[in-house]
Amino acid sequence: MNQQQFQSCINACNDCANACDYCSAACLGEQDVKAMTRCIALDIDCAQICRMAAAYMARGSEFAELICRACADICDACGKECAKHKMDHCQQCAQACRRCAEECRSMAAQPA
Amino acid sequence: MNQQQFQSCINACNDCANACDYCSAACLGEQDVKAMTRCIALDIDCAQICRMAAAYMARGSEFAELICRACADICDACGKECAKHKMDHCQQCAQACRRCAEECRSMAAQPA
Amino acid sequence: MNQQQFQSCINACNDCANACDYCSAACLGEQDVKAMTRCIALDIDCAQICRMAAAYMARGSEFAELICRACADICDACGKECAKHKMDHCQQCAQACRRCAEECRSMAAQPA
Amino acid sequence: MNQQQFQSCINACNDCANACDYCSAACLGEQDVKAMTRCIALDIDCAQICRMAAAYMARGSEFAELICRACADICDACGKECAKHKMDHCQQCAQACRRCAEECRSMAAQPA
Repeated sequence: MNQQQFQSCINACNDCANACDYCSAACLGEQDVKAMTRCIALDIDCAQICRMAAAYMARGSEFAELICRACADICDACGKECAKHKMDHCQQCAQACRRCAEECRSMAAQPA
Repeated sequence: MNQQQFQSCINACNDCANACDYCSAACLGEQDVKAMTRCIALDIDCAQICRMAAAYMARGSEFAELICRACADICDACGKECAKHKMDHCQQCAQACRRCAEECRSMAAQPA
Repeated sequence: MNQQQFQSCINACNDCANACDYCSAACLGEQDVKAMTRCIALDIDCAQICRMAAAYMARGSEFAELICRACADICDACGKECAKHKMDHCQQCAQACRRCAEECRSMAAQPA
Repeated sequence: MNQQQFQSCINACNDCANACDYCSAACLGEQDVKAMTRCIALDIDCAQICRMAAAYMARGSEFAELICRACADICDACGKECAKHKMDHCQQCAQACRRCAEECRSMAAQPA
Protein backbone atom coordinates (compact mmCIF):
# COMPACT_ATOMS: atom_id res chain seq x y z
CA MET A 1 0.00 0.00 0.00
CA ASN A 2 1.30 3.44 -0.82
CA GLN A 3 -0.70 6.36 0.52
CA GLN A 4 1.78 8.88 -0.87
CA GLN A 5 0.92 8.11 -4.51
CA PHE A 6 -2.70 8.89 -3.65
CA GLN A 7 -2.04 12.04 -1.65
CA SER A 8 -2.67 14.49 -4.45
CA CYS A 9 -5.96 12.82 -5.34
CA ILE A 10 -7.00 12.55 -1.67
CA ASN A 11 -6.43 16.29 -1.29
CA ALA A 12 -8.45 17.05 -4.42
CA CYS A 13 -11.32 14.88 -3.13
CA ASN A 14 -11.35 16.54 0.30
CA ASP A 15 -11.21 20.02 -1.27
CA CYS A 16 -14.01 19.15 -3.67
CA ALA A 17 -16.16 17.70 -0.87
CA ASN A 18 -15.71 20.89 1.16
CA ALA A 19 -16.56 23.06 -1.85
CA CYS A 20 -19.67 20.98 -2.63
CA ASP A 21 -20.93 20.92 0.96
CA TYR A 22 -20.37 24.68 1.21
CA CYS A 23 -22.06 25.29 -2.17
CA SER A 24 -25.12 23.19 -1.24
CA ALA A 25 -25.71 25.33 1.86
CA ALA A 26 -24.98 28.60 0.06
CA CYS A 27 -27.41 27.64 -2.75
CA LEU A 28 -30.12 26.98 -0.13
CA GLY A 29 -29.59 30.57 1.05
CA GLU A 30 -29.91 32.15 -2.42
CA GLN A 31 -32.86 34.43 -3.23
CA ASP A 32 -33.78 32.33 -6.29
CA VAL A 33 -33.30 28.91 -4.69
CA LYS A 34 -35.66 27.37 -7.25
CA ALA A 35 -32.99 27.90 -9.92
CA MET A 36 -30.47 26.04 -7.77
CA THR A 37 -32.24 22.76 -7.00
CA ARG A 38 -30.26 20.54 -9.40
CA CYS A 39 -27.05 22.20 -8.20
CA ILE A 40 -27.98 21.38 -4.58
CA ALA A 41 -28.82 17.75 -5.38
CA LEU A 42 -25.56 17.24 -7.28
CA ASP A 43 -23.54 19.00 -4.56
CA ILE A 44 -24.90 16.52 -2.01
CA ASP A 45 -24.08 13.52 -4.24
CA CYS A 46 -20.63 14.84 -5.09
CA ALA A 47 -19.60 15.75 -1.53
CA GLN A 48 -20.58 12.29 -0.36
CA ILE A 49 -18.65 10.29 -2.97
CA CYS A 50 -15.60 12.59 -2.73
CA ARG A 51 -15.35 11.96 1.02
CA MET A 52 -15.76 8.23 0.45
CA ALA A 53 -13.14 8.18 -2.32
CA ALA A 54 -10.66 9.89 0.02
CA ALA A 55 -11.36 7.20 2.63
CA TYR A 56 -10.90 4.32 0.15
CA MET A 57 -7.60 5.78 -1.06
CA ALA A 58 -6.30 6.47 2.45
CA ARG A 59 -7.01 2.83 3.32
CA GLY A 60 -5.30 1.67 0.12
CA SER A 61 -8.48 -0.24 -0.74
CA GLU A 62 -8.45 -2.69 -3.64
CA PHE A 63 -11.53 -0.81 -4.87
CA ALA A 64 -10.04 2.70 -4.75
CA GLU A 65 -9.81 2.88 -8.56
CA LEU A 66 -13.44 1.77 -9.03
CA ILE A 67 -14.66 4.45 -6.62
CA CYS A 68 -12.43 7.12 -8.20
CA ARG A 69 -13.88 6.37 -11.64
CA ALA A 70 -17.42 6.81 -10.33
CA CYS A 71 -16.31 9.92 -8.45
CA ALA A 72 -14.92 11.47 -11.64
CA ASP A 73 -18.27 11.02 -13.43
CA ILE A 74 -20.21 12.64 -10.60
CA CYS A 75 -17.67 15.50 -10.37
CA ASP A 76 -18.13 16.11 -14.11
CA ALA A 77 -21.90 16.47 -13.75
CA CYS A 78 -21.67 18.63 -10.63
CA GLY A 79 -18.97 20.83 -12.14
CA LYS A 80 -20.99 21.39 -15.33
CA GLU A 81 -24.10 22.37 -13.38
CA CYS A 82 -22.18 24.69 -11.03
CA ALA A 83 -20.42 26.35 -13.96
CA LYS A 84 -23.82 27.63 -15.21
CA HIS A 85 -24.29 29.85 -12.14
CA LYS A 86 -22.30 33.04 -11.64
CA MET A 87 -22.14 33.07 -7.81
CA ASP A 88 -18.67 32.66 -6.28
CA HIS A 89 -19.63 29.49 -4.41
CA CYS A 90 -20.76 27.85 -7.66
CA GLN A 91 -17.74 29.00 -9.66
CA GLN A 92 -15.33 27.80 -6.96
CA CYS A 93 -17.18 24.52 -6.71
CA ALA A 94 -17.04 24.05 -10.50
CA GLN A 95 -13.28 24.53 -10.38
CA ALA A 96 -12.84 22.07 -7.48
CA CYS A 97 -15.00 19.52 -9.34
CA ARG A 98 -12.94 19.82 -12.53
CA ARG A 99 -9.67 19.37 -10.63
CA CYS A 100 -11.05 16.42 -8.69
CA ALA A 101 -12.37 14.69 -11.83
CA GLU A 102 -8.91 15.01 -13.42
CA GLU A 103 -7.10 13.70 -10.34
CA CYS A 104 -9.53 10.78 -10.00
CA ARG A 105 -9.13 9.79 -13.67
CA SER A 106 -5.36 10.00 -13.46
CA MET A 107 -5.41 7.95 -10.25
CA ALA A 108 -7.69 5.28 -11.75
CA ALA A 109 -5.39 4.99 -14.79
CA GLN A 110 -2.30 4.12 -12.69
CA PRO A 111 -0.95 0.58 -13.02
CA ALA A 112 -1.93 -1.32 -9.88
CA MET B 1 -38.77 10.27 -8.37
CA ASN B 2 -40.13 7.05 -7.04
CA GLN B 3 -38.64 5.80 -3.78
CA GLN B 4 -40.99 2.80 -3.73
CA GLN B 5 -39.37 1.14 -6.75
CA PHE B 6 -36.07 1.34 -4.87
CA GLN B 7 -37.35 0.14 -1.50
CA SER B 8 -36.34 -3.49 -1.88
CA CYS B 9 -32.80 -2.51 -2.93
CA ILE B 10 -32.54 0.11 -0.16
CA ASN B 11 -33.46 -2.55 2.38
CA ALA B 12 -30.89 -4.98 0.97
CA CYS B 13 -28.21 -2.27 1.14
CA ASN B 14 -29.01 -1.35 4.74
CA ASP B 15 -29.09 -5.03 5.76
CA CYS B 16 -25.78 -5.69 4.02
CA ALA B 17 -24.16 -2.62 5.62
CA ASN B 18 -25.27 -3.81 9.06
CA ALA B 19 -23.97 -7.33 8.39
CA CYS B 20 -20.62 -6.01 7.13
CA ASP B 21 -20.14 -3.56 10.02
CA TYR B 22 -21.01 -6.34 12.48
CA CYS B 23 -18.71 -8.82 10.71
CA SER B 24 -15.77 -6.38 10.72
CA ALA B 25 -15.97 -6.00 14.49
CA ALA B 26 -16.57 -9.71 15.10
CA CYS B 27 -13.55 -10.58 12.90
CA LEU B 28 -11.41 -8.19 14.98
CA GLY B 29 -12.43 -10.23 18.03
CA GLU B 30 -11.51 -13.63 16.53
CA GLN B 31 -8.64 -15.67 17.99
CA ASP B 32 -6.97 -15.94 14.59
CA VAL B 33 -7.51 -12.34 13.49
CA LYS B 34 -4.55 -12.60 11.10
CA ALA B 35 -6.63 -14.92 8.91
CA MET B 36 -9.41 -12.32 8.79
CA THR B 37 -7.58 -9.18 7.64
CA ARG B 38 -8.85 -9.14 4.03
CA CYS B 39 -12.35 -9.90 5.32
CA ILE B 40 -12.14 -6.91 7.67
CA ALA B 41 -10.88 -4.58 4.93
CA LEU B 42 -13.63 -5.64 2.52
CA ASP B 43 -16.30 -5.41 5.24
CA ILE B 44 -15.32 -1.77 5.83
CA ASP B 45 -15.42 -0.96 2.11
CA CYS B 46 -18.70 -2.79 1.60
CA ALA B 47 -20.51 -1.29 4.59
CA GLN B 48 -19.54 2.19 3.47
CA ILE B 49 -20.73 1.90 -0.14
CA CYS B 50 -23.93 0.07 0.86
CA ARG B 51 -24.91 2.92 3.19
CA MET B 52 -24.10 5.45 0.47
CA ALA B 53 -26.07 3.51 -2.15
CA ALA B 54 -29.11 3.52 0.15
CA ALA B 55 -28.75 7.30 0.53
CA TYR B 56 -28.49 7.89 -3.25
CA MET B 57 -31.57 5.74 -3.89
CA ALA B 58 -33.60 7.35 -1.11
CA ARG B 59 -32.82 10.76 -2.66
CA GLY B 60 -33.74 9.48 -6.13
CA SER B 61 -30.30 10.63 -7.33
CA GLU B 62 -29.56 10.65 -11.06
CA PHE B 63 -26.44 8.67 -10.12
CA ALA B 64 -28.18 5.95 -8.10
CA GLU B 65 -27.63 3.35 -10.86
CA LEU B 66 -23.92 4.18 -11.17
CA ILE B 67 -23.42 3.75 -7.41
CA CYS B 68 -25.47 0.53 -7.35
CA ARG B 69 -23.29 -0.98 -10.08
CA ALA B 70 -20.13 -0.21 -8.08
CA CYS B 71 -21.84 -1.48 -4.94
CA ALA B 72 -22.66 -4.80 -6.60
CA ASP B 73 -18.98 -5.36 -7.53
CA ILE B 74 -17.81 -4.65 -3.99
CA CYS B 75 -20.54 -6.88 -2.52
CA ASP B 76 -19.37 -9.70 -4.82
CA ALA B 77 -15.79 -9.46 -3.52
CA CYS B 78 -16.83 -9.13 0.11
CA GLY B 79 -19.31 -12.00 -0.15
CA LYS B 80 -16.73 -14.31 -1.75
CA GLU B 81 -14.17 -13.58 0.97
CA CYS B 82 -16.71 -14.01 3.78
CA ALA B 83 -17.94 -17.30 2.30
CA LYS B 84 -14.47 -18.80 2.91
CA HIS B 85 -14.83 -18.49 6.70
CA LYS B 86 -17.11 -20.77 8.69
CA MET B 87 -18.07 -18.37 11.51
CA ASP B 88 -21.71 -17.33 11.67
CA HIS B 89 -20.93 -13.64 11.24
CA CYS B 90 -19.04 -14.38 8.02
CA GLN B 91 -21.65 -16.77 6.64
CA GLN B 92 -24.46 -14.32 7.37
CA CYS B 93 -22.47 -11.49 5.85
CA ALA B 94 -21.78 -13.57 2.72
CA GLN B 95 -25.53 -14.14 2.33
CA ALA B 96 -26.36 -10.44 2.81
CA CYS B 97 -23.68 -9.51 0.26
CA ARG B 98 -25.06 -11.93 -2.35
CA ARG B 99 -28.60 -10.62 -1.91
CA CYS B 100 -27.43 -7.01 -2.07
CA ALA B 101 -25.37 -7.60 -5.22
CA GLU B 102 -28.43 -9.11 -6.91
CA GLU B 103 -30.73 -6.28 -5.85
CA CYS B 104 -28.21 -3.65 -6.94
CA ARG B 105 -27.76 -5.24 -10.38
CA SER B 106 -31.50 -5.57 -10.88
CA MET B 107 -31.95 -1.94 -9.79
CA ALA B 108 -29.22 -0.68 -12.12
CA ALA B 109 -30.81 -2.55 -15.05
CA GLN B 110 -34.18 -0.79 -14.70
CA PRO B 111 -35.17 1.59 -17.48
CA ALA B 112 -34.71 5.15 -16.17
CA MET C 1 -20.58 -7.12 21.81
CA ASN C 2 -24.24 -7.72 21.28
CA GLN C 3 -25.72 -6.49 18.02
CA GLN C 4 -29.13 -7.92 18.90
CA GLN C 5 -29.71 -5.46 21.74
CA PHE C 6 -29.08 -2.67 19.25
CA GLN C 7 -31.21 -4.09 16.43
CA SER C 8 -34.32 -2.08 17.16
CA CYS C 9 -32.34 1.17 17.31
CA ILE C 10 -30.34 0.29 14.18
CA ASN C 11 -33.61 -0.26 12.31
CA ALA C 12 -35.01 3.05 13.53
CA CYS C 13 -31.83 4.85 12.41
CA ASN C 14 -31.88 3.29 8.95
CA ASP C 15 -35.60 4.05 8.53
CA CYS C 16 -35.07 7.63 9.67
CA ALA C 17 -32.10 8.10 7.32
CA ASN C 18 -34.18 6.84 4.40
CA ALA C 19 -37.09 9.13 5.32
CA CYS C 20 -34.77 12.15 5.67
CA ASP C 21 -32.91 11.50 2.40
CA TYR C 22 -36.24 11.05 0.61
CA CYS C 23 -37.71 14.17 2.25
CA SER C 24 -34.69 16.31 1.29
CA ALA C 25 -35.11 15.42 -2.37
CA ALA C 26 -38.92 15.77 -2.28
CA CYS C 27 -38.58 19.23 -0.63
CA LEU C 28 -36.22 20.29 -3.44
CA GLY C 29 -39.01 19.41 -5.87
CA GLU C 30 -41.72 21.42 -4.10
CA GLN C 31 -43.27 24.48 -5.76
CA ASP C 32 -42.44 26.67 -2.76
CA VAL C 33 -38.93 25.34 -2.15
CA LYS C 34 -38.01 28.61 -0.39
CA ALA C 35 -40.26 27.59 2.52
CA MET C 36 -38.42 24.27 2.80
CA THR C 37 -34.79 25.32 3.06
CA ARG C 38 -34.33 24.67 6.80
CA CYS C 39 -36.14 21.34 6.37
CA ILE C 40 -33.71 20.36 3.59
CA ALA C 41 -30.64 21.35 5.63
CA LEU C 42 -31.84 19.40 8.68
CA ASP C 43 -32.80 16.39 6.54
CA ILE C 44 -29.22 16.25 5.22
CA ASP C 45 -27.72 16.49 8.73
CA CYS C 46 -30.14 13.94 10.14
CA ALA C 47 -29.76 11.35 7.38
CA GLN C 48 -25.99 11.51 7.74
CA ILE C 49 -25.82 11.02 11.51
CA CYS C 50 -28.53 8.31 11.47
CA ARG C 51 -26.51 6.25 8.97
CA MET C 52 -23.38 6.76 11.06
CA ALA C 53 -25.17 5.81 14.29
CA ALA C 54 -26.36 2.56 12.67
CA ALA C 55 -22.75 1.82 11.66
CA TYR C 56 -21.37 2.49 15.16
CA MET C 57 -24.01 0.25 16.73
CA ALA C 58 -23.53 -2.55 14.20
CA ARG C 59 -19.80 -2.49 15.02
CA GLY C 60 -20.54 -2.49 18.75
CA SER C 61 -18.39 0.65 19.04
CA GLU C 62 -17.44 1.92 22.50
CA PHE C 63 -18.77 5.28 21.28
CA ALA C 64 -22.18 4.06 20.09
CA GLU C 65 -23.95 5.72 23.04
CA LEU C 66 -22.22 9.06 22.47
CA ILE C 67 -23.26 9.07 18.81
CA CYS C 68 -26.81 7.99 19.65
CA ARG C 69 -27.18 10.89 22.09
CA ALA C 70 -26.09 13.37 19.40
CA CYS C 71 -28.34 11.60 16.89
CA ALA C 72 -31.37 12.00 19.19
CA ASP C 73 -30.82 15.78 19.43
CA ILE C 74 -30.58 16.17 15.66
CA CYS C 75 -33.65 13.94 15.14
CA ASP C 76 -35.57 16.18 17.54
CA ALA C 77 -34.75 19.31 15.55
CA CYS C 78 -35.43 17.68 12.18
CA GLY C 79 -38.69 16.14 13.40
CA LYS C 80 -39.94 19.47 14.76
CA GLU C 81 -39.18 21.27 11.50
CA CYS C 82 -40.77 18.54 9.34
CA ALA C 83 -43.89 18.50 11.54
CA LYS C 84 -44.62 22.12 10.49
CA HIS C 85 -45.17 21.11 6.86
CA LYS C 86 -48.30 19.26 5.72
CA MET C 87 -46.79 17.28 2.83
CA ASP C 88 -46.72 13.50 3.24
CA HIS C 89 -42.93 13.29 2.92
CA CYS C 90 -42.53 15.78 5.79
CA GLN C 91 -45.15 14.17 8.00
CA GLN C 92 -43.64 10.71 7.48
CA CYS C 93 -40.16 12.08 8.13
CA ALA C 94 -41.34 13.77 11.34
CA GLN C 95 -42.70 10.44 12.55
CA ALA C 96 -39.49 8.57 11.68
CA CYS C 97 -37.45 11.25 13.48
CA ARG C 98 -39.55 11.01 16.64
CA ARG C 99 -39.25 7.22 16.74
CA CYS C 100 -35.50 7.36 16.09
CA ALA C 101 -34.93 9.97 18.83
CA GLU C 102 -36.77 7.73 21.30
CA GLU C 103 -34.84 4.61 20.30
CA CYS C 104 -31.51 6.46 20.45
CA ARG C 105 -32.25 7.86 23.93
CA SER C 106 -33.34 4.47 25.20
CA MET C 107 -30.23 2.87 23.69
CA ALA C 108 -27.90 5.48 25.22
CA ALA C 109 -29.48 4.93 28.66
CA GLN C 110 -28.71 1.20 28.71
CA PRO C 111 -26.13 0.01 31.24
CA ALA C 112 -22.90 -0.71 29.37
CA MET D 1 -22.75 31.22 7.49
CA ASN D 2 -18.99 31.62 7.51
CA GLN D 3 -16.96 28.71 6.18
CA GLN D 4 -13.69 30.64 6.64
CA GLN D 5 -13.90 30.59 10.44
CA PHE D 6 -14.17 26.81 10.23
CA GLN D 7 -11.41 26.26 7.68
CA SER D 8 -8.68 25.42 10.14
CA CYS D 9 -10.88 22.87 11.90
CA ILE D 10 -12.12 21.40 8.61
CA ASN D 11 -8.50 20.88 7.55
CA ALA D 12 -7.64 19.22 10.86
CA CYS D 13 -10.65 16.89 10.51
CA ASN D 14 -9.77 15.89 6.95
CA ASP D 15 -6.12 15.32 7.91
CA CYS D 16 -7.12 13.27 10.93
CA ALA D 17 -9.57 11.18 8.88
CA ASN D 18 -6.85 10.43 6.33
CA ALA D 19 -4.38 9.49 9.08
CA CYS D 20 -6.94 7.22 10.78
CA ASP D 21 -8.03 5.50 7.57
CA TYR D 22 -4.37 4.96 6.65
CA CYS D 23 -3.52 3.72 10.15
CA SER D 24 -6.43 1.24 10.18
CA ALA D 25 -5.17 -0.39 6.98
CA ALA D 26 -1.52 -0.31 8.07
CA CYS D 27 -2.45 -1.92 11.41
CA LEU D 28 -4.25 -4.71 9.53
CA GLY D 29 -0.95 -5.39 7.74
CA GLU D 30 1.17 -5.58 10.92
CA GLN D 31 2.77 -8.86 11.93
CA ASP D 32 1.19 -8.70 15.40
CA VAL D 33 -2.26 -7.56 14.27
CA LYS D 34 -3.78 -8.99 17.46
CA ALA D 35 -2.11 -6.19 19.45
CA MET D 36 -3.71 -3.61 17.14
CA THR D 37 -7.40 -4.53 17.26
CA ARG D 38 -8.55 -1.68 19.51
CA CYS D 39 -6.46 0.73 17.45
CA ILE D 40 -8.17 -0.48 14.26
CA ALA D 41 -11.65 -0.17 15.77
CA LEU D 42 -10.98 3.36 17.04
CA ASP D 43 -9.37 4.38 13.73
CA ILE D 44 -12.57 3.38 11.91
CA ASP D 45 -14.77 5.31 14.37
CA CYS D 46 -12.51 8.36 14.30
CA ALA D 47 -12.12 8.54 10.52
CA GLN D 48 -15.88 8.36 10.10
CA ILE D 49 -16.79 11.15 12.54
CA CYS D 50 -13.92 13.39 11.35
CA ARG D 51 -15.22 13.22 7.76
CA MET D 52 -18.76 13.93 8.99
CA ALA D 53 -17.60 16.85 11.14
CA ALA D 54 -15.86 18.39 8.12
CA ALA D 55 -19.11 18.04 6.15
CA TYR D 56 -21.25 19.66 8.89
CA MET D 57 -18.82 22.59 9.18
CA ALA D 58 -18.55 23.07 5.41
CA ARG D 59 -22.36 23.28 5.28
CA GLY D 60 -22.41 25.72 8.21
CA SER D 61 -24.82 23.32 9.97
CA GLU D 62 -26.55 24.48 13.15
CA PHE D 63 -25.26 21.22 14.67
CA ALA D 64 -21.59 21.66 13.71
CA GLU D 65 -20.60 22.42 17.33
CA LEU D 66 -22.42 19.35 18.68
CA ILE D 67 -20.66 17.09 16.18
CA CYS D 68 -17.27 18.72 16.86
CA ARG D 69 -17.64 18.09 20.58
CA ALA D 70 -18.33 14.39 19.96
CA CYS D 71 -15.49 14.30 17.43
CA ALA D 72 -13.05 15.70 20.01
CA ASP D 73 -13.91 12.92 22.48
CA ILE D 74 -13.41 10.20 19.88
CA CYS D 75 -10.13 11.80 18.71
CA ASP D 76 -8.91 11.78 22.34
CA ALA D 77 -9.53 8.04 22.68
CA CYS D 78 -8.07 7.19 19.28
CA GLY D 79 -5.02 9.40 19.87
CA LYS D 80 -4.34 7.82 23.28
CA GLU D 81 -4.54 4.29 21.84
CA CYS D 82 -2.34 5.12 18.84
CA ALA D 83 0.26 6.79 21.08
CA LYS D 84 0.89 3.41 22.76
CA HIS D 85 2.27 1.89 19.54
CA LYS D 86 5.68 2.85 18.16
CA MET D 87 4.97 2.40 14.43
CA ASP D 88 5.11 5.57 12.31
CA HIS D 89 1.49 5.21 11.17
CA CYS D 90 0.32 5.10 14.80
CA GLN D 91 2.55 7.97 15.96
CA GLN D 92 1.44 10.16 13.05
CA CYS D 93 -2.17 9.25 13.68
CA ALA D 94 -1.82 10.10 17.38
CA GLN D 95 -0.51 13.54 16.44
CA ALA D 96 -3.30 14.16 13.94
CA CYS D 97 -5.87 13.10 16.55
CA ARG D 98 -4.46 15.47 19.19
CA ARG D 99 -4.49 18.42 16.79
CA CYS D 100 -8.01 17.59 15.61
CA ALA D 101 -9.33 17.30 19.18
CA GLU D 102 -7.89 20.74 19.99
CA GLU D 103 -9.32 22.33 16.85
CA CYS D 104 -12.74 20.76 17.45
CA ARG D 105 -12.85 21.98 21.07
CA SER D 106 -11.80 25.45 20.08
CA MET D 107 -14.40 25.49 17.29
CA ALA D 108 -17.17 24.27 19.60
CA ALA D 109 -16.30 27.00 22.13
CA GLN D 110 -16.83 29.84 19.63
CA PRO D 111 -19.79 32.14 20.22
CA ALA D 112 -22.50 31.22 17.70
